[in-house]
Amino acid sequence: MMGKMLRFSLFGESHGKAVGVLVEGVPPGIKVDIGKMKAELERRRGIERFSTKRKEKDEPVILSGVFNGFTTGSPIAVIIENRDVDSSYYEKIKNTPRPGHSDYTAGIRYFGFNDYRGGGFFSGRLTAGMMIAGYFAKEILSKAGIGVRAYIKSIGKVKAKDLSVEEVFSSKLCPDEEAFQKMLEEMERARNEGDSVGGVVEVIAINVPPGIGGPYDEDLEGDLAKAFFAIPAVKGVEFGLGFRIAELRGSEANDPFVIKDGKIMTKTNNCGGILGGISNGMPIVARIAFKPVPSIYKPQKTVDIERMEETEIKLTGRFDSCIVPKALPVVEAMMAFVLADHLLRWLGWKGFMSLGKR
Amino acid sequence: MMGKMLRFSLFGESHGKAVGVLVEGVPPGIKVDIGKMKAELERRRGIERFSTKRKEKDEPVILSGVFNGFTTGSPIAVIIENRDVDSSYYEKIKNTPRPGHSDYTAGIRYFGFNDYRGGGFFSGRLTAGMMIAGYFAKEILSKAGIGVRAYIKSIGKVKAKDLSVEEVFSSKLCPDEEAFQKMLEEMERARNEGDSVGGVVEVIAINVPPGIGGPYDEDLEGDLAKAFFAIPAVKGVEFGLGFRIAELRGSEANDPFVIKDGKIMTKTNNCGGILGGISNGMPIVARIAFKPVPSIYKPQKTVDIERMEETEIKLTGRFDSCIVPKALPVVEAMMAFVLADHLLRWLGWKGFMSLGKR
Amino acid sequence: MMGKMLRFSLFGESHGKAVGVLVEGVPPGIKVDIGKMKAELERRRGIERFSTKRKEKDEPVILSGVFNGFTTGSPIAVIIENRDVDSSYYEKIKNTPRPGHSDYTAGIRYFGFNDYRGGGFFSGRLTAGMMIAGYFAKEILSKAGIGVRAYIKSIGKVKAKDLSVEEVFSSKLCPDEEAFQKMLEEMERARNEGDSVGGVVEVIAINVPPGIGGPYDEDLEGDLAKAFFAIPAVKGVEFGLGFRIAELRGSEANDPFVIKDGKIMTKTNNCGGILGGISNGMPIVARIAFKPVPSIYKPQKTVDIERMEETEIKLTGRFDSCIVPKALPVVEAMMAFVLADHLLRWLGWKGFMSLGKR
Amino acid sequence: MMGKMLRFSLFGESHGKAVGVLVEGVPPGIKVDIGKMKAELERRRGIERFSTKRKEKDEPVILSGVFNGFTTGSPIAVIIENRDVDSSYYEKIKNTPRPGHSDYTAGIRYFGFNDYRGGGFFSGRLTAGMMIAGYFAKEILSKAGIGVRAYIKSIGKVKAKDLSVEEVFSSKLCPDEEAFQKMLEEMERARNEGDSVGGVVEVIAINVPPGIGGPYDEDLEGDLAKAFFAIPAVKGVEFGLGFRIAELRGSEANDPFVIKDGKIMTKTNNCGGILGGISNGMPIVARIAFKPVPSIYKPQKTVDIERMEETEIKLTGRFDSCIVPKALPVVEAMMAFVLADHLLRWLGWKGFMSLGKR
Repeated sequence: MMGKMLRFSLFGESHGKAVGVLVEGVPPGIKVDIGKMKAELERRRGIERFSTKRKEKDEPVILSGVFNGFTTGSPIAVIIENRDVDSSYYEKIKNTPRPGHSDYTAGIRYFGFNDYRGGGFFSGRLTAGMMIAGYFAKEILSKAGIGVRAYIKSIGKVKAKDLSVEEVFSSKLCPDEEAFQKMLEEMERARNEGDSVGGVVEVIAINVPPGIGGPYDEDLEGDLAKAFFAIPAVKGVEFGLGFRIAELRGSEANDPFVIKDGKIMTKTNNCGGILGGISNGMPIVARIAFKPVPSIYKPQKTVDIERMEETEIKLTGRFDSCIVPKALPVVEAMMAFVLADHLLRWLGWKGFMSLGKR
Repeated sequence: MMGKMLRFSLFGESHGKAVGVLVEGVPPGIKVDIGKMKAELERRRGIERFSTKRKEKDEPVILSGVFNGFTTGSPIAVIIENRDVDSSYYEKIKNTPRPGHSDYTAGIRYFGFNDYRGGGFFSGRLTAGMMIAGYFAKEILSKAGIGVRAYIKSIGKVKAKDLSVEEVFSSKLCPDEEAFQKMLEEMERARNEGDSVGGVVEVIAINVPPGIGGPYDEDLEGDLAKAFFAIPAVKGVEFGLGFRIAELRGSEANDPFVIKDGKIMTKTNNCGGILGGISNGMPIVARIAFKPVPSIYKPQKTVDIERMEETEIKLTGRFDSCIVPKALPVVEAMMAFVLADHLLRWLGWKGFMSLGKR
Repeated sequence: MMGKMLRFSLFGESHGKAVGVLVEGVPPGIKVDIGKMKAELERRRGIERFSTKRKEKDEPVILSGVFNGFTTGSPIAVIIENRDVDSSYYEKIKNTPRPGHSDYTAGIRYFGFNDYRGGGFFSGRLTAGMMIAGYFAKEILSKAGIGVRAYIKSIGKVKAKDLSVEEVFSSKLCPDEEAFQKMLEEMERARNEGDSVGGVVEVIAINVPPGIGGPYDEDLEGDLAKAFFAIPAVKGVEFGLGFRIAELRGSEANDPFVIKDGKIMTKTNNCGGILGGISNGMPIVARIAFKPVPSIYKPQKTVDIERMEETEIKLTGRFDSCIVPKALPVVEAMMAFVLADHLLRWLGWKGFMSLGKR
Repeated sequence: MMGKMLRFSLFGESHGKAVGVLVEGVPPGIKVDIGKMKAELERRRGIERFSTKRKEKDEPVILSGVFNGFTTGSPIAVIIENRDVDSSYYEKIKNTPRPGHSDYTAGIRYFGFNDYRGGGFFSGRLTAGMMIAGYFAKEILSKAGIGVRAYIKSIGKVKAKDLSVEEVFSSKLCPDEEAFQKMLEEMERARNEGDSVGGVVEVIAINVPPGIGGPYDEDLEGDLAKAFFAIPAVKGVEFGLGFRIAELRGSEANDPFVIKDGKIMTKTNNCGGILGGISNGMPIVARIAFKPVPSIYKPQKTVDIERMEETEIKLTGRFDSCIVPKALPVVEAMMAFVLADHLLRWLGWKGFMSLGKR
């Protein structure tokens, strides 16, 4: 379970009956648009040609918490049945953990009882539940005028140029068209080589009121980081200038306060909208590093854990050559989730319900 | 409060009566060495000439949870009184928030009631409590043979070369002596310019058994990241190759499994010892980016929040020119804390108590 | 969500698509017997003639967390579809809250968006999820040799005589056959009068090892009470002699320590197996008071909340005349759940997995 | 740690350096009256002649979270030093656990490392921390017009008559003067016999707005019960008619809704102000059963745990003959705490801060 006032819990396995999510703490009275929810889930399919061939559409079934088209305030359980599943392959490789995967560690943690088919509970498919949690979070945020948008910052060594907040919000995958073409080529190259490639997603939230978050255990950065690392394949998270800020002087890094339109703002936004763990009213900016998909077609060294001898594995099956386009909406969902949770801590349901009315 | 089976809660303000920590869930029977605890606290003083001139020694007073020299299993409260405090300066600047500081956001979140003297609850001084939590965590880990060590990876643009685990564990601040000298010079330069400089800390844990952690809400990376971001001035966290792994192909990034000394290990450790949120038995490696100390002597633009007009602030007082050497042991403490928490989730007190006996 | 190492979350509504539960923290490797699970659910039907006429059988569908017949260690989602549902009646009474019901308070808390049909999320039907959580908890406890059994202590003013632990464990509903006949008559009388009647359930756990629980926030009594009050219609919880102990002298109430079979035990068990919030190795004994079912056929005074005027409500439909026989297995489930949670806190998964092996 | 938005954590031991509490989540801007806090602590002394002879006054020292006389919103640590302590006696009896005490179970849970002097962390002295948490909770509630008051319902077999809410709020210990005299006599008798006696406290909260609480995991009754059981010596908790309601018919137990002064209320209050776990706007009424103090002067059977042989213990020292008058304000504190926590969940800090302003 993640979150405090808004919470979600994932369940399901890649090749089991279904994947799903339980979302708790959603205030009552939010209109539920199943078409919009599906559209969000569709975004998880990424760019067709670099994605797995799993053909099934994700059909979310709302089991609870919605009545007459509105959230009731009770827990919302949503499931997506698994249909297009062939697990025979995983039986063959169950003793040879795939490098870079959770196969080995899950086997130890669950004493060999884990569902190893398609990664089981560790599968990227579980992020469907995150998208649904994110759908509700975005509906909550929209009542407060808060928007969240992610884009691809880099694929492999191809990086997008610096972009304005407006540009980011005007685009779905990457507003730097030129760089995006090169990113597509890089993904294509990786695929053609039977390989995969990593990348970075940047995500931005606007109109977050100042005062959300807190020190240490309530730190927005800490809660966002925990939510981002919950997405499979994430290996780094940074805010504002992130690791680059470590190279600067204080006089370069500090964001001077200014008055603009009668409001206190900062001239620059090197801190990424968060000071002392608390939102300062500027856009909240984070970058998340994704490792390349570990499942590749090139032969790899591994170990047969039953015979305890070194061996080689050559994967066949359907794998993404790049997870980044699929992960992008999940990053958005996780940022929306954490901000909505903190907003509800700040306002309570009572305050949230009167948001539109003032 | 942070943690689940092992927990800590910070309290206190920089210029208040005391700072302190409540550590809960520490198993009974751990010998408490107050000298060792003080030595850990001393490490937080960093390198004398780049640190604030606050002269007082941190004298931890254990209020509870220790009896006859051993932990009892009950909550351990430890406080450190504040002595060498002069708050007059902060009265003068309370209406002009320091750029890069929590002054402004804390003022909003706490409706102006926050203790603004010396940063109050947001002060780096609160990390003394983290050190004490870390002291107990390290004692717990040591019973399981787990070691944690941090070093300075970079100051500004000066970076240490790649280092072996052995080198890291043989040193206190930075095992790359040559780079370290340049780091000192860089800190000196920043100080002489009335400025500050950021840096990166790398931290490594060894002998962590495989199987600790879990997916999404139990993810070791997520819990570690949340703990690291709880340290003031942190703006980025990465594991293994971190952001660099996003530039690689899967065939470069994946760590092949091998057998060594009859045990399953990985040939490389690009994943930083964590796969699927779970330890794989290899060293756990993280890097944490610190922004430069926001308090600098150069004049800065800010806003007078009472008069709502732009103005300039020129700080006087005692400030670090570089927080990184001071933050280094805190990073260690936070990693030790998270690992000890997860170890206790895995073993329970019952299993922990029998660790030495087998 | 309830619990810490073992956790469950309920979802669903009485007249929605399904009711269900998410059970987290169940260790891997527990054999799942769906027949046994159904048998537990069947117990919730109570005594046929005093129960609602809802004919459908509860068919639990396990969505996740079970693989090849064993728990995997991942979250277990189980749902039961609702079939035999007719909601038309509830449309008629939605403006006239039933006395003694959550209709009125739920309407306020959820700003009128709650699913009022059949009590929605507040329905006794949600206890099916508790039974499933209890099923897994009992499997966990059985590995440690711990048994839990509940029986009907009283119906209305008819009370069972004092019973030995052996008698309690030899019976399903009430080991005092004579009293039980009178209880049945009392339920019959209530039903014939178009009324309902309350009662008390006593629950006993045996073979709980001493040392489980803790002071204040870890208090076994507190956690058990919270779990019992989570069952609808509970208005009182007591341990050992309970309210009667308040009438005694210390010399009467204290349980003297004795040695029996080489083990430290208490001669009496007035404290109900818990001292200082911690199990003492004796049977844990609790009693739970259930109010009479608020839905009765007699006309009752209520208010039309739309017109804001007093009115009368005369319920038709299918209601239990006594909830106690149905609630009995739920009480068992909740006690099993809390004890299993505390056992896992004590042993960790690691210790639990080696339970059978020693 | 107890609570969610408002939280408290106890620490300290009866014969250690201090006892204390960490209170987190208190909104900023609450005026702190140390005299009032001390007066609350004084109430814990009970009735002089039936209380222990510990002469020291409880001097609370606020370490953090209060600035310029107002709460800051940061964690509030308050400690009370232990002065009048003589532990020599406890060394003598450490191998012979006192019947009815936590001595035996704590020894097992903490593997013999617990501070056994005066009950250590299990001592009634720890309730001083609860009083301080309650002090802040009451200040929060008072801003919303909510009042909480407890009185002695019974001592041994002497019971107070039924009392109106007004009578309860007009008195400190027991508004039924006649019964109270008999209670004093009963306590006197117990003391003269070298024995102790139990009793029941009733507590009432008024002006709680409807809509606070929730089903199962948010159930007001469950959270209140958990908080009450956190007080040492509690063996039973009930709401409204409590165990008596189990004897009734639905037609007797249900509280009819009526309109009074333009508001929806119930004619009777058998449910104790809570329906479906949610406040209904009526007074919230709970009763809490306290066992007699286990420390008595009469000789008792126990076991020498080192020699593993049965023996007798005859306590000397200073013990209360009845804990009920001392426990009464603690019951109030715990009810205030839970209600304030739920109020803050409902309103958020943001909503709370604007309470006075409307």
